[in-house]
This record gives sequence, structure tokens and C-alpha cells, in this order.
Amino acid sequence: MTNTADTNVEAVHKAAGAKPGSRRFDRRALLTGGAAGVGIGAVLGLGAALGVPALQGAGEDPAAASTDDGFGAESISCHGTHQAGIVTPPAAHVRYVAYTLLPETDKAALQRMFRIITGDVEGLTSGAAPLADSEPELAARPSALTITVGVGPALVDRVGAGRKPEWLAPLPSFERDKLSEIHGGGDLLVLLQADDPLAIAHAARMIDRDIRSFVKPHWTQQGFRQTRGAEKPGTTMRNLMGQVDGTVNPSPKEKDFSSVIWAESTGSDAWLAGGSALVVRRIRMELDTWEMVDRPGREQTIGRTLSDGAPLTGGSEHTAIDFDAKDSKGLPVIPSFAHTRRAHSTDPSERIFRRGANYDEGGESGLIFACYQQDPLRQFVPIQRRLDELDLLNEWVTHVGSAVFAILPGFKQGEQLGASLLAS
Amino acid sequence: MTNTADTNVEAVHKAAGAKPGSRRFDRRALLTGGAAGVGIGAVLGLGAALGVPALQGAGEDPAAASTDDGFGAESISCHGTHQAGIVTPPAAHVRYVAYTLLPETDKAALQRMFRIITGDVEGLTSGAAPLADSEPELAARPSALTITVGVGPALVDRVGAGRKPEWLAPLPSFERDKLSEIHGGGDLLVLLQADDPLAIAHAARMIDRDIRSFVKPHWTQQGFRQTRGAEKPGTTMRNLMGQVDGTVNPSPKEKDFSSVIWAESTGSDAWLAGGSALVVRRIRMELDTWEMVDRPGREQTIGRTLSDGAPLTGGSEHTAIDFDAKDSKGLPVIPSFAHTRRAHSTDPSERIFRRGANYDEGGESGLIFACYQQDPLRQFVPIQRRLDELDLLNEWVTHVGSAVFAILPGFKQGEQLGASLLAS
Repeated sequence: MTNTADTNVEAVHKAAGAKPGSRRFDRRALLTGGAAGVGIGAVLGLGAALGVPALQGAGEDPAAASTDDGFGAESISCHGTHQAGIVTPPAAHVRYVAYTLLPETDKAALQRMFRIITGDVEGLTSGAAPLADSEPELAARPSALTITVGVGPALVDRVGAGRKPEWLAPLPSFERDKLSEIHGGGDLLVLLQADDPLAIAHAARMIDRDIRSFVKPHWTQQGFRQTRGAEKPGTTMRNLMGQVDGTVNPSPKEKDFSSVIWAESTGSDAWLAGGSALVVRRIRMELDTWEMVDRPGREQTIGRTLSDGAPLTGGSEHTAIDFDAKDSKGLPVIPSFAHTRRAHSTDPSERIFRRGANYDEGGESGLIFACYQQDPLRQFVPIQRRLDELDLLNEWVTHVGSAVFAILPGFKQGEQLGASLLAS
Repeated sequence: MTNTADTNVEAVHKAAGAKPGSRRFDRRALLTGGAAGVGIGAVLGLGAALGVPALQGAGEDPAAASTDDGFGAESISCHGTHQAGIVTPPAAHVRYVAYTLLPETDKAALQRMFRIITGDVEGLTSGAAPLADSEPELAARPSALTITVGVGPALVDRVGAGRKPEWLAPLPSFERDKLSEIHGGGDLLVLLQADDPLAIAHAARMIDRDIRSFVKPHWTQQGFRQTRGAEKPGTTMRNLMGQVDGTVNPSPKEKDFSSVIWAESTGSDAWLAGGSALVVRRIRMELDTWEMVDRPGREQTIGRTLSDGAPLTGGSEHTAIDFDAKDSKGLPVIPSFAHTRRAHSTDPSERIFRRGANYDEGGESGLIFACYQQDPLRQFVPIQRRLDELDLLNEWVTHVGSAVFAILPGFKQGEQLGASLLAS
């Protein structure tokens, strides 16, 4: 593949002062039928196409700082030791876009691809719009947009042998999994999060357009949390089963948080230092039968109240669960099959950092479960193994999609996403 | 059909002080395997299911007025001469859910169905949660939720002959239409709009559950505008082509606005007085080729600037377009094929009230075009006929879905949605 198109993109990205329109077909060529495949010749006969107004460049003030209220102009820096979108506050809207590498995308092409992605991420998240952005007005209000990039096993292999961490592979299978290819795997992940779906739609489209000569789309999942401004401040999100979801989660403020999620290997996968391992699971909910269960039954299933997520052993949401508590009959207050009991681990090395979102589309509802950790085999898998073996909640949830990605380390201004991988 | 299920729902809705859980299977019956089809017997052997905590009723304080910031607690009254969600401010999120009547749903069943819908609409939009709501916590923050109900031709026929307005039928076909059954037609429309997708997901689910013994799902479309708090205040929405979309729209403040959208027939369709006619068109955008066109070309296609939606003949967004203006070569500044010229009508009886939303899912992007009017044949069709015949924008947009609904008149507290139709 000669990659003419992406060389152009790259040129636009690199060229200082390049005209924003330089990547597009010339309007006149288009209107005179010069652009193949657009086919407006028939219309042309009607004339009047020649009254060209003064050219209005794409870069003309689209990102002027706004002084109005609201959060549209808010941007989160994409630069840092770690990528944005992992420990930054969860956004209201999320889109996972997974791609498969084209066969001809070699290491040199990956270099170009990551250079392009880096420029797009910098432009889109800052609201300045990348140079080649065809609708800069749609990029002007990033609404706390973050774009987080991960790589699958095949991409790491494409760079060269011996770089892959052991966990960068499909997860071991679980008894109850009903995985579909439609929502699983992938070589490249572009994870977009923002408080506005328009910002995500536009950013996803720009990146997609710019990397299409290297990859083809594999799967997409869109999710949401309660939107910004609608949530009760200080509350943990609720999933579509009505449960408070995500209460037990290590805080970035905890002193050993680094050892929970940030890769720190010094071995053959040292390129990943500062990155993380992401597990994404699409968990379908069977709401029709779930809603047949009365509230006490649903609360026993979880081990927490529905009203505020407090443990059935008392207190409020963040009170520690007393797994030893017995009721007046001497039976455990938190049943042996309760989700919280099965998910609970006394081993601190099994902690994961969760970041879920609801999905509800195409007649299916559920949770896009996502967790970050150093090593899914050590951290996520033992937890999921316990849930897979016994968890009453399994009657109403089914894992239908699964993917594992190495989330690239962060990058500074002037650096490039994926540089350590490609340099290794 | 005996409609046992919906009679139950109805009973719950009607019974003063009915226990919220009364419609659900008893937890103990479930845990002892009494509920068919749930199949948790295997788990049961593990015991410990009997430590029932104090019952926590569904109605327990879910809708307590919140005193925090944000708009989560905002509710829009569903009562009035007209239904909410038509001229109320457009929400960030929208979901159209169209249903087909089951063959056995007769007029008496429709009475019951509309009684149930009325209760659901009242409860869900107020944040109080309907009595049978299984996750009242998800209903507690309606975020300006509106639920607007419309009926298709088959439903009106089911009530009895001779009640149907002439326009309540599939639209006449247009040359360029590529309509798919997947997004067209329908007997009942439930249109949900809110500033929070969680409020919509929950409300859609509750209504769906409650009316499933009368109807089956036909199609669903989800859309969005820039989210509340992200938009630049006072700006008109942008579609995914980057255009300011919806500038020319009659305002409810105009003195003849009533004659644009509210039905006022005194004939056989007098039951619709205070209602409206809704046309929904799913318009796919070909963004790949659209983005090949440079900005002047795209602006000529529309007749407006991309930066702020001002006419190419000058001024700002809301300046009237000067269709007679010529450039220095004597050619029209607004080309003969420009979208704005073709959409423009000098006949005030052709006005429509638009209310669009973007969609971007399943690899397809576009606009869910919606317009309200007294009579689509008189108002929407001539406009669409002109666009169908000639509009350069057609190179990049295709109508792939179409539906027409009679939007029911509003209702007061104590009244029922659809009462005039069913009484006629």
C-alpha cells in the first residue's frame, strides 16, 4: 500500500501554516465534475456555481476561547505521564472504537499513524481542532473530551517480537461467557469520553477518517452515565438495574494506587511503563426478569440497598461491608451468593480500578464494564472467576463482549503517542 | 387476549396506596424456584437466602425534591392544552419508539393502554415515578423529561372508521427516497426527550414494559443535540455536517403560530383539536464525500456560511436571505440549487415547525428530522417536493426512514391521553 492518503494527512499535520482546506478536493474541481464518484454533473448544468464568496478558512476562529457559562469550552490536557481519560473524572458519554490493522500496515506505517493520532488528540481535546479538521466548529467545544489510545496484541506483534506482556491476549474463558465477536478483541482502541455526545461524534469521525488507510473498523460501543448537571452531586453512578454501581473503587489519592493500575515493568514490556491494562466487558442485563424480583430479593442479590447503595449490614454507601454479620436466625446478612461478597477480595493485589458506563441501544441494555490494572491475570481474572462460579446476579447479567488492550503511556507536548513501543 | 398482565398494571396504577411491589413475583417464591423461567434452583442449594432485611418499599422517598445544583430535578408539566415536548425547549437527548398494535388490541384495550400510558407519563415526567416503577431511583431526576404520544393510521382505524385525517398515511413517495421499513411507519409513537440519557432509558423501559400486552416494538431511533451546558448559549444547533441547522423556524411567539402546528379541525377528525401532525424522517448523511468538498463549496450547497450560519448574502444567522442578490458577475449569490433557496417558500401556509436531532450509531450518521404542522400534505410535502427535485445537498443526504403520526391533544390532570379519540 502506498498510503498516498495518509501521507497527505501527515503532511497537513506537519506543515506549518498549511491551509486547512489543502487536503480536500478543490471546490471548483468538484463543481465541474472533476472529483470522481461525487457525480453532481447533472446539477452543474444549472449554472450559478461560480459566484464564489470570499474563502472562509477552516482555521478562522473556531477555537476562540468562549466566555459564556457552561462547560463546553472545558478542556482536559492530553499531555502527562499517563494518558487522560483513565483517572480523570468519568464523563457522561463514552465511545469505544476498536480497529483491526490492515495487513499492509507495517512498523513504518504505525509510526505515521501514531503521529497522526497524536496531532488529532492534541487538537480535538484542546478545542483548537486539528489542522485537517473539516468541521472545526464541531471541535470548538470539547466539553472535557479525552481520547485514550490502546493497542491489542496483534499491533504489538506487528512492531516486532518479544514486546508483549503476558496478559495482552484474550482473557481466559469463563464458564458463563457468551462472547460475540461483534464486541470483542481488536488491534487498536480509540476511547473517547466527553460530557457532550456531539464532541464525541465529531472527534471519533475525524480520527476515523485520518487513520482509515491503516486500519479498518472492528467494533464500536457507546455508553453513558447520568449527564453532567443532572446527577445528584457526590453520588456514585447508577446502572440500568437501578443499582449504585462502582462504590468500591481504589482512589487515585491512595498511596499505593500506582501499583494498582500503572504499568511499571522493566522487562521486555518496559515500553508500557506509565501505561495500563484495560479490560472491557460488555455485560448484557436481563431487565425483564430482573424486574420481576421484588426489592428485598434484588438487594440480597447485590448485598446493598437499592435506595442508596449502603451495605445490608448497615451504614451508608461507603461504609465497609460486614461480611461476618448474622441476622437473628444466625444466617449471614450478606448471603453467600451475593454479588458484593463474591466480588470482594481480601487480597490487596487483586484490586482493579473500575470505570463503567450504561448502554441501551438496539434493544439491548447493560453495562460497559471497564477496569484498569497492572495485570488483568493477577487482578481482574480472580475476581471474575469467583463471580463466574457463583453470583446470584449472574441470573440477570451475561458477559457478551470482551477485549483487553494495553493503554499506551502518556506523552508530553512534542512527544508522540506510542513512541516507546515503536522505539523498542 | 385476556390481558391479565395489563389488567394488573392497571390495577396497580389505579389502586390507592397499592404496594409498589405488588406486580412483581414474590422474592421468596423466586428464591425457592417458584418463578418459572428464572432457574436459580442450583444456586438455592447454597442456602442463606432467608435472611430477609426490612422491606424497603419502592415508594420510599425516591422523588424527594432535591436541593442541589443542576437540572436533574427539573420537571416539565405534562398537562396542558397541548402535549409537552413539542414547543418546550428542545432537549439534548431524544428517543423515538414506534410500536405496532397487536391484532387483539381492540378499542377497550386501547382505553386501558392509554390509561396506563397517562399514569406513566404523569409519574415519570414529574420525577415521582409511577406506582409500578421497579427502579424509582432512576425516575427521581427527570432532567426536563417530556413524553409525547402519537398515533398512526392503523390505531385510529382500530378505534373505528371515519376518524382519520387525510394526511395520516405514509407520505407520497419522493424520487430520491430510499426508505427502509426498519425506520418507518408505526401505529403508536412514544417520543421521549430529556437532558439526561439515563432518564430516557429508564422512562422508555417502564412504558415499554407496561404496554407490551397491547403492542410490539417496531422501530427505535435515538438522537442528540449538543448537551445542556455544553452549547454556546443562544446558538442554533449544529448537525453532523457542521451546519447550523434550524435557523428558519416559526416561533411559538408569532401570532399565527397556532395555525402552523395545532390541529383545529371541526370535522370527523375534531378529536385531534389541540394536537398536531408529526413527520419524522431519518436522513442519512454521506460524510465521507461531504468532507471532500471545500468550505466554499459546502457553503454554496447550503447558501449559508459554515462559521455562523449567516446567509451568503450577508448579515448574521437570523438575517433574512436576499434571494435576489447577484455577485459581480451577475450570478445569484445564493445558487439556484442551494438548499436554502429550494427549501424557501413565499407561501406562509407552507411553514413547518422543525425539531431535529443528530444520530450517530451503527456506523451511520445523520439527522432525525422532525417537523410539526397542521397538515403535512399542505405544509411539509411541497417543501420536500422542491428539495427532492433539486437541492445540491441531496448529493450527501438520503432519506432512509419516514413516518407520520397524529400527535394527541394535551390533557389535564384527571384526564386521559387519547380521551377525545376514544370517545369519538
